[in-house]
Amino acid sequence: MIGIFDSGIGGLTVVRAFMTILRDYDIIYFGDTARTPYGNKSERTVLRYAQENIDFLLHKGAQIIITACNTAASVLIQAPNNSYNIPMFEVITPAVRLSVEASKNRRIGVIGTRATITSGIYEKKIHMLNSKINVYSASCPLLVPLVEEAWLTKPETTMIVKKYLHPLKVRQIDTLILGCTHYPILKKIIHRKIGKKVDIIDSSLAVANQVKNFLKANPESDLELKKNGNLKIFVSDVTEQFQKTAREILKKNISLEHLAI
Amino acid sequence: MIGIFDSGIGGLTVVRAFMTILRDYDIIYFGDTARTPYGNKSERTVLRYAQENIDFLLHKGAQIIITACNTAASVLIQAPNNSYNIPMFEVITPAVRLSVEASKNRRIGVIGTRATITSGIYEKKIHMLNSKINVYSASCPLLVPLVEEAWLTKPETTMIVKKYLHPLKVRQIDTLILGCTHYPILKKIIHRKIGKKVDIIDSSLAVANQVKNFLKANPESDLELKKNGNLKIFVSDVTEQFQKTAREILKKNISLEHLAI
Repeated sequence: MIGIFDSGIGGLTVVRAFMTILRDYDIIYFGDTARTPYGNKSERTVLRYAQENIDFLLHKGAQIIITACNTAASVLIQAPNNSYNIPMFEVITPAVRLSVEASKNRRIGVIGTRATITSGIYEKKIHMLNSKINVYSASCPLLVPLVEEAWLTKPETTMIVKKYLHPLKVRQIDTLILGCTHYPILKKIIHRKIGKKVDIIDSSLAVANQVKNFLKANPESDLELKKNGNLKIFVSDVTEQFQKTAREILKKNISLEHLAI
Repeated sequence: MIGIFDSGIGGLTVVRAFMTILRDYDIIYFGDTARTPYGNKSERTVLRYAQENIDFLLHKGAQIIITACNTAASVLIQAPNNSYNIPMFEVITPAVRLSVEASKNRRIGVIGTRATITSGIYEKKIHMLNSKINVYSASCPLLVPLVEEAWLTKPETTMIVKKYLHPLKVRQIDTLILGCTHYPILKKIIHRKIGKKVDIIDSSLAVANQVKNFLKANPESDLELKKNGNLKIFVSDVTEQFQKTAREILKKNISLEHLAI
């Protein structure tokens, strides 16, 4: 099975991308809703949570792991003892590659949680591919609660998006990375406010395509994976709000299993 | 020692009230910053967290416990096996009593997190004192992140406060309970938007006064408590943001101890 985890609900946008691009592959998802959000917590705490989540997915039989949370990915990538014996993917690396390919004027913007932006991981990874690219980052801590409240079309949300994007707009970025799995849900407003000419990089599709290419190149890994189109969702806390938003993201009825942590 | 706990940072407004009203009493505080916020989590998860926090404070030598988190208090009050052998206080009961005393037209408003408002605890407790009072409630889930981001004077915050309070304003409430320890930090905007004639009930001062009266009436409990003016703060996650906001609330330098949970 393909194992995907996130701090909560945002990672379901990654599940949606996998269901489009790797249709029929069995997926097991874990959302850490009892400890969500990760984006304003320390590196040390987020690393511990990420490792616990991976261990849970391995225990449940995952043969490939996708870290669908940018905050968790930002600490896992930089962790010294990060050695698992199975293929591991995350949302940052493929989004970085796409953004470097897309940028014509070498001016890339990144938005994410406070923890992701503070880690500087996007800037480091972009500069590893091309040191001449200018990277401008902005943390947008209120966008996660706004998405979780489903305040998607309210004027306050538009004002807050505009305020967060302003420093990137004045830098005349030509490419913008959505460095948090919640942000694709606000893609339309973000695109309108940053300007229609700016390329928007959505990491959920990027990672699904990366895994698709990996499986083509590694048929022995592909053969191990079940393809019955099953989706199993575990969460550490069950709330009505999660169930409602999950249905909205996946456009289908889902059942959740509770994991006490 | 007096033990006080909260889901994170908001409970420091209660610490501040104790430092004013019970000056010199030793306080031990626990902020569950690794799992914050509680307000959008389920009853079952919040109850487990609250019990773990109480056990930690007891283990550290607390002889009185104050639940400084409305969400935690709302589930603890209604929990079936809630029997600790020491005096326990929380922020809901004294605020309810004050609001019933203050209301002239028997129209009380309550604002809080989604979990607190869904629990219906304020309405139940108010009706136990006076069944003829009309209670109008509104959950305000975005106010906690706005306070934690220190967006205290931004126009977006004012708009959101106004939107949340609108249904209470049209009901012509004469008294408003701030049913979340974060809200006293937004007291001025809230007062302006709900109307200056409305009495605002701040539960942090209410519970500190209740404990003061209890200690006067129970000198044997009072004698047990240390009075060296010490404040010890434990958190389950250490972040710069917490340290900054803590200093702003308490108006003094503080040091934090980390508790891994």
